[in-house]
Amino acid sequence: MNEAAWFPPSAEEAADIGGEIHALVSRLFPICRSITGEGVRRTLAILSEHVDVAIREVPSGTNVFDWTVPQEWNVRGASIRTASGKTVVDIADSNLHLVGYSEPVARRMPLSDLRAHIHTLPDQPDLIPYRTSYYSRSWGFCMAHCDYLALEEGDYDVVIDTTLADGSLTYGEVFLPGETEHEVLLSAHICHPSLANDNCSGLAVLAFLARALAGRRRRFGYRFLFAPGTIGALCWLAANEDRLSKVHHGLVVSCIGDGGGPVYKRSRRGDAMIDRAIEVIRCDGRKVTMVDFSPFGYDERQFCSPGFNLPVGLLQRSAFGTFAEYHTSADDLDFVWPEHLASSFRMIMDIIDVIETDRIPLNLSPKGEPQLGKRGLYSATGGHKTTPEITMAYLWVLNLADGSHSLLDIARRSGLPFSTIATAATRLEACRLLGDVQA
Amino acid sequence: MNEAAWFPPSAEEAADIGGEIHALVSRLFPICRSITGEGVRRTLAILSEHVDVAIREVPSGTNVFDWTVPQEWNVRGASIRTASGKTVVDIADSNLHLVGYSEPVARRMPLSDLRAHIHTLPDQPDLIPYRTSYYSRSWGFCMAHCDYLALEEGDYDVVIDTTLADGSLTYGEVFLPGETEHEVLLSAHICHPSLANDNCSGLAVLAFLARALAGRRRRFGYRFLFAPGTIGALCWLAANEDRLSKVHHGLVVSCIGDGGGPVYKRSRRGDAMIDRAIEVIRCDGRKVTMVDFSPFGYDERQFCSPGFNLPVGLLQRSAFGTFAEYHTSADDLDFVWPEHLASSFRMIMDIIDVIETDRIPLNLSPKGEPQLGKRGLYSATGGHKTTPEITMAYLWVLNLADGSHSLLDIARRSGLPFSTIATAATRLEACRLLGDVQA
Amino acid sequence: MNEAAWFPPSAEEAADIGGEIHALVSRLFPICRSITGEGVRRTLAILSEHVDVAIREVPSGTNVFDWTVPQEWNVRGASIRTASGKTVVDIADSNLHLVGYSEPVARRMPLSDLRAHIHTLPDQPDLIPYRTSYYSRSWGFCMAHCDYLALEEGDYDVVIDTTLADGSLTYGEVFLPGETEHEVLLSAHICHPSLANDNCSGLAVLAFLARALAGRRRRFGYRFLFAPGTIGALCWLAANEDRLSKVHHGLVVSCIGDGGGPVYKRSRRGDAMIDRAIEVIRCDGRKVTMVDFSPFGYDERQFCSPGFNLPVGLLQRSAFGTFAEYHTSADDLDFVWPEHLASSFRMIMDIIDVIETDRIPLNLSPKGEPQLGKRGLYSATGGHKTTPEITMAYLWVLNLADGSHSLLDIARRSGLPFSTIATAATRLEACRLLGDVQA
Repeated sequence: MNEAAWFPPSAEEAADIGGEIHALVSRLFPICRSITGEGVRRTLAILSEHVDVAIREVPSGTNVFDWTVPQEWNVRGASIRTASGKTVVDIADSNLHLVGYSEPVARRMPLSDLRAHIHTLPDQPDLIPYRTSYYSRSWGFCMAHCDYLALEEGDYDVVIDTTLADGSLTYGEVFLPGETEHEVLLSAHICHPSLANDNCSGLAVLAFLARALAGRRRRFGYRFLFAPGTIGALCWLAANEDRLSKVHHGLVVSCIGDGGGPVYKRSRRGDAMIDRAIEVIRCDGRKVTMVDFSPFGYDERQFCSPGFNLPVGLLQRSAFGTFAEYHTSADDLDFVWPEHLASSFRMIMDIIDVIETDRIPLNLSPKGEPQLGKRGLYSATGGHKTTPEITMAYLWVLNLADGSHSLLDIARRSGLPFSTIATAATRLEACRLLGDVQA
Repeated sequence: MNEAAWFPPSAEEAADIGGEIHALVSRLFPICRSITGEGVRRTLAILSEHVDVAIREVPSGTNVFDWTVPQEWNVRGASIRTASGKTVVDIADSNLHLVGYSEPVARRMPLSDLRAHIHTLPDQPDLIPYRTSYYSRSWGFCMAHCDYLALEEGDYDVVIDTTLADGSLTYGEVFLPGETEHEVLLSAHICHPSLANDNCSGLAVLAFLARALAGRRRRFGYRFLFAPGTIGALCWLAANEDRLSKVHHGLVVSCIGDGGGPVYKRSRRGDAMIDRAIEVIRCDGRKVTMVDFSPFGYDERQFCSPGFNLPVGLLQRSAFGTFAEYHTSADDLDFVWPEHLASSFRMIMDIIDVIETDRIPLNLSPKGEPQLGKRGLYSATGGHKTTPEITMAYLWVLNLADGSHSLLDIARRSGLPFSTIATAATRLEACRLLGDVQA
Repeated sequence: MNEAAWFPPSAEEAADIGGEIHALVSRLFPICRSITGEGVRRTLAILSEHVDVAIREVPSGTNVFDWTVPQEWNVRGASIRTASGKTVVDIADSNLHLVGYSEPVARRMPLSDLRAHIHTLPDQPDLIPYRTSYYSRSWGFCMAHCDYLALEEGDYDVVIDTTLADGSLTYGEVFLPGETEHEVLLSAHICHPSLANDNCSGLAVLAFLARALAGRRRRFGYRFLFAPGTIGALCWLAANEDRLSKVHHGLVVSCIGDGGGPVYKRSRRGDAMIDRAIEVIRCDGRKVTMVDFSPFGYDERQFCSPGFNLPVGLLQRSAFGTFAEYHTSADDLDFVWPEHLASSFRMIMDIIDVIETDRIPLNLSPKGEPQLGKRGLYSATGGHKTTPEITMAYLWVLNLADGSHSLLDIARRSGLPFSTIATAATRLEACRLLGDVQA
């Protein structure tokens, strides 16, 4: 494979990508999403403006493995008012105010009864928490603890104008075919309401990745999945069970727009190529923190269940549950920054670059070092105390190009970024010092 | 195997166990023990009040591997008196005063000659050291260094009223048969005189373990060995050489009553099940510090010699040689506490619980996560920042129950205590989400 | 193999070795060396006073793998003078002043033109750097930055009286045959001019090692190579390509006379016996810092190229490039000390001792510990808190002498020095507790 086979994003292309992604996050943020309903459909419609999204509808009641697709939930409004008509909570102010999948309610009740239905965060008294009750008929409101404490005794009028009825679960899929049958799965959950990092950022970054990849030569096919958490992933798995063996690499992407991390949770396999590839890329010059698989998180839980055991890991900036804004109203549009969205975009492009361009080089001059100086690849003056990184990359590639190490192996062993190793290999190939192992 | 097959100690049973064990330690402490003699027999007689101990006598002169059973040593008295008749050292004050296996002496000698026979600890001047001379005819006294410095020049009358004569070496054995031929060996040395932690604690804890296990269903047979160090263990090994293959797991237990550690020294094999089991239990909520095998210590030296290589490790609270009280008169009844004896007892019960109940579970719903919520095993409300340990245990068990991981493997991989993993597995079995791999 | 088969250096032999080696370093230091020329020949002539060096000459233009032997370079003089005749730089003051392989020059030029040919170290303004330009026709001077700053504007007369002409590359080889065909390669580069640690120290230490080994019984043959860096090693490899399989162990030795480290860079194989042997020796009581192979450094780059992949590592005190004196005029005779040269000499002798004497012992009394006390190998008095190192060595050797561990394995596992383990094994063999595994 020659250098021309894969084109990294041009500088022009990357320049404004952060701003563009942030603009998309901003359009997705206000929508009231859940695991079913019009919010998901509106979200997919916006994503469809960027890439060609196939919309799938799975009817309520459909059995998927151990689960059943629930009734479709839609929201027209939800509020709490004092007996005198003063609004104290209204979903119009924040989608987080209403517990996801709350059943319809319209009644007056004293505060003493209402308390059992109110969720707050006493340790973060100014923030509204995010809560759901998908599979247990219930209702509730979320509010800032300080507002909760200010509620006066007395009766309140609770109105939850929702519908829970047979309908369908909706998810979207983008597929970009590759030169081979092998596929890369990139998945982001679409079910969270107004939480910018979790996961408007994941949806937006993947949409722009799909757009960028659509114009490139691809060894692999790329499948983007925008599905509600758990039940959506299970619906996709059930619909595609006979072709899962095509998935050679995969990433679940969430919380990808803040300035932390990055953190990568390995696939259940632990040593899949995707797990190794992420060790050799950089994000804004930083290595990715690697953590071992655990069966809690996003849809890698489903992809990595023992019956599938797909090579899919979870890529994040700050890891879920570890940042103060997680699952609160502070996960808003100010929490995700264009520059972080851009560096995350480039990081995933670099990961894809590893997958697309890795190969096993063969040193064609393996006895001693070849003379790099006469080929312009080595300093003409000797004696310096330090060695440029690209020189070290030439030496590492030549030393390990014995037919048993891929470029990825060489990057891991040398501690150098894959991009530097790949550049070195390409130049050595141009000098005919390096050939390919014929598979 | 169902949950009923193994019963952990009830709360009632555990409540006073520390006090009971300490009372037994207190009865054993004053006895003057060595590797042979009446002290060992009196000790075994007291242990026999708690469990059915088979007493073995091995005649002096018997060859055991590279060793010979020595003559039996008994003590009637030992003292040093000034020429004017003032007692300066008397074994009646502490069994440690007399070097173990001192030969009979009755003579007057000047202090200048006596000095060569006196052992002290200059760095711990108030404590009496513990010394022995089993295999080299000799005699000596141990005393506090400050008392030694106070000895005045002049003649002293030394009387060591001991006998060294043909007789036998004594050890005790308790065997509780199991449902299988496989055995667990639990061993404590019985040869140390008035040292509470080393090893009255080990003898007493094992006696109570034997009593507790006697009333339970047991997959494994349990063999408790109370034998003098080195030569006693060798006698047992020689007598049981043809059946050592039945020993599937084993522990040497010593210094088990203080508040340190726990510390576990792995068997020579290093990855025996006992070595792995101890990684997943807790003692008062603390993990056990694991150290690799080394060929110095207690009778694991014999069990782990290359000709036997049994899967036997050493379990201690504070490791021998590392605590200031070790082998001194400060290792007394105040150094071992009822609560530490109780937590050590429970720790060993928990280890046995791993051995008895480990199994390879099989996820019967391996495609995606099964829906735990509908079975009451998952929070009805979603969105919380943290996850209860038992929920993590369900997810870990389900994720790794692919037929190639035992509960012990799952506990090690997850970092959760075995007891939590086992509880989760039992509940998942009750829900028919988990079955057993048929061996 | 019995103890007599290998004799470590006697105390007398070792006593003055540091002074003798330093005296040799002092004779080698003033010579103006490069990768070819009379400097190399004069250096080899001095080494030949100590050991029997075979001199090899390889004609200019000879192809060796990807390289060609360059023309021979010789220097008669080099200076920079002001127009008024004042000398500002003269190679007579330091060989470092002239860039290695500078082509002949005789011309007047203004300082503004001269600057491009002057190398300094702004961060170490009092030191002269070391620079070369072997394979690119060029010329230049090196000087202290403070002197460079003091140069006044105006014209300067530059004279470089060198010759670059067909001739030959010279290297030296010492071979001491062994009882077997297997060889140990010990290599030091001979091409650096007046740099005491890098590498007069390596040349001198190896010369004394060769002299010391010449008088001993040797299982292995020892091949000492004194060759110019890269091209010299390649010449040797090309001349010996058909017999490289005889090289079972090897070391490149450089920077071996300062007080740092030691640091050992493993061979490319990473687990060659030489890599493991160095873990179990000590230098002045210190362990050797082990670092993994990297393809930058001295001639291990050639020996460990993928086409050869010889089991050769790099042994240094302070690692090249990490000490302030590296490749500067501060790497002078005061930087290398007799005591460090002596401890390095002894360290390499100890490494050779591992290679020569390692064997797989077999415990002839493997059931339980044999009774060491009756053989005088164990303290007669028991109960001490600590155990002498030699006692631990007896126990480790006996415990691991199961036919699958060599003395080197036992030293690594126990953490004890090889010398202690070897002493223990020899004494246990004398007691017939240990035999040899018959290969």
